[in-house]
Amino acid sequence: MPNSPENFPIGVFDSGIGGLTVLAAIRELLPHEPLLYLGDTARVPYGTRSAETVQRYSERVASHLWNRGIKALVIACNTASTYALESLSRAGEELGIPVLGVIEPGVQEALAATQHGRIAVLGTEGTVRGGRYQALLRAGGHEAEALACPLFVALAEEGWVKGPITQAVAERYLGELNSNPDTVILGCTHYPLLAQTIQNVLPDVQLIDSAQATARSLRTSLSERNLLARSGTGSMRFLVTDNIERFCRSGRVFLGHLPDPVELIDLNAASAPFLGNNE
Amino acid sequence: MPNSPENFPIGVFDSGIGGLTVLAAIRELLPHEPLLYLGDTARVPYGTRSAETVQRYSERVASHLWNRGIKALVIACNTASTYALESLSRAGEELGIPVLGVIEPGVQEALAATQHGRIAVLGTEGTVRGGRYQALLRAGGHEAEALACPLFVALAEEGWVKGPITQAVAERYLGELNSNPDTVILGCTHYPLLAQTIQNVLPDVQLIDSAQATARSLRTSLSERNLLARSGTGSMRFLVTDNIERFCRSGRVFLGHLPDPVELIDLNAASAPFLGNNE
Repeated sequence: MPNSPENFPIGVFDSGIGGLTVLAAIRELLPHEPLLYLGDTARVPYGTRSAETVQRYSERVASHLWNRGIKALVIACNTASTYALESLSRAGEELGIPVLGVIEPGVQEALAATQHGRIAVLGTEGTVRGGRYQALLRAGGHEAEALACPLFVALAEEGWVKGPITQAVAERYLGELNSNPDTVILGCTHYPLLAQTIQNVLPDVQLIDSAQATARSLRTSLSERNLLARSGTGSMRFLVTDNIERFCRSGRVFLGHLPDPVELIDLNAASAPFLGNNE
Repeated sequence: MPNSPENFPIGVFDSGIGGLTVLAAIRELLPHEPLLYLGDTARVPYGTRSAETVQRYSERVASHLWNRGIKALVIACNTASTYALESLSRAGEELGIPVLGVIEPGVQEALAATQHGRIAVLGTEGTVRGGRYQALLRAGGHEAEALACPLFVALAEEGWVKGPITQAVAERYLGELNSNPDTVILGCTHYPLLAQTIQNVLPDVQLIDSAQATARSLRTSLSERNLLARSGTGSMRFLVTDNIERFCRSGRVFLGHLPDPVELIDLNAASAPFLGNNE
């Protein structure tokens, strides 16, 4: 049954390369699945854009993936999960396609893991200001501290994931935590690359890796719908909206190998219901 | 004569906030001038985009500034200067408006300053790969080493312009220089903020600040055309294409004070086609 829904790929999208940590976690947990990754590299980063802009960009990306045929959509970007999960979930419901963000799964695991209810979230400036982690944790009964660590993204993209400089940056940021957390959510797709350094600085906390949490949540969602691929070797394909060369170069750090095959696409050329104006 | 050309503002544009170092240098050298800054914050950063994309974005920004009425255009962005100076200069010539990039002025000052002809350029990945500094220095008789220092941008935006972490990052990058330069061009608009740290690491080199070089070149260009404002208190106005709040917050580090007034504009709503476009 090559065209039955369980053989469709899982769509995974991010503004750039950060979502590759989520892709890698899905690949590891669900090795039989065909995976289709879209990095919106013409508009990266989403983290510093306004809410309206992030929502518009995310809808355009989702339309493109839906038109290609996917069985599930993973928003592998904290900023897009903050601002666009609601509208994309509604649209996915109409299409019968489950839509997952990276925030809820991390929050659920943190709520299950915390010993004393002291949870902190590390994220980009946009994620911290967006406040979705804090709101969901509050709904789960816990006030959480959220801390922006902007340099972590640049360090991860540079491949400086450990060593004295990264350690010093982590000490400086994490020294600002006031709440003595027992559980810390890595609330940015780049941060799992720095997990070891962060753990060195905070040896007693339980780190929650949103990428792995999202992969587990995806498995549950597909299983409930009988959409899991049961056999086959799986596959990965990549779409980007600009600069393939840079995507491949930086992507290697995130994925552990060169992304391949990569195709350059033009989201403005697609005809789809969500489509708004040119960027 | 309020509407005579010398009273028109000087247009200065960058993909984001980095160009504010150029704006500040112009303000200091030409305090009587009205300055109009456009930060294309909806599309920042240009440094990781393809050449075609940077050119398209730059042309859209220039059209907008031309439509508002400016007496000169400064491309305060190394990436846009690399890929769009030529087409914007052609269009500016038709309009009788001088167009300056940030690269040529820095190169001229470096060629004048070097003692032994050993010049190095520090820039973003995009500027280094674009190769315009290297080509112009070669045309001036010198092979130059170019080094990308991506973390400098994140450090400047975080406001960590000195201290042990910034020092360690600078030592790591600058330790990669092979050519024992006597003159080093700060080939990214963010880098002048780190000038003191860079000088600490390389105490014997002459640093060339492209922002100041560009301001001096602008003064010459306006003076030759009799377009200098001779009196008045000058002024600054700011246009951004997304996220005013973040522009103000980060802009303060670059400008030394809060950018004000700032207006949000939509470049897609601009009616005039790019003047140099033949289509």
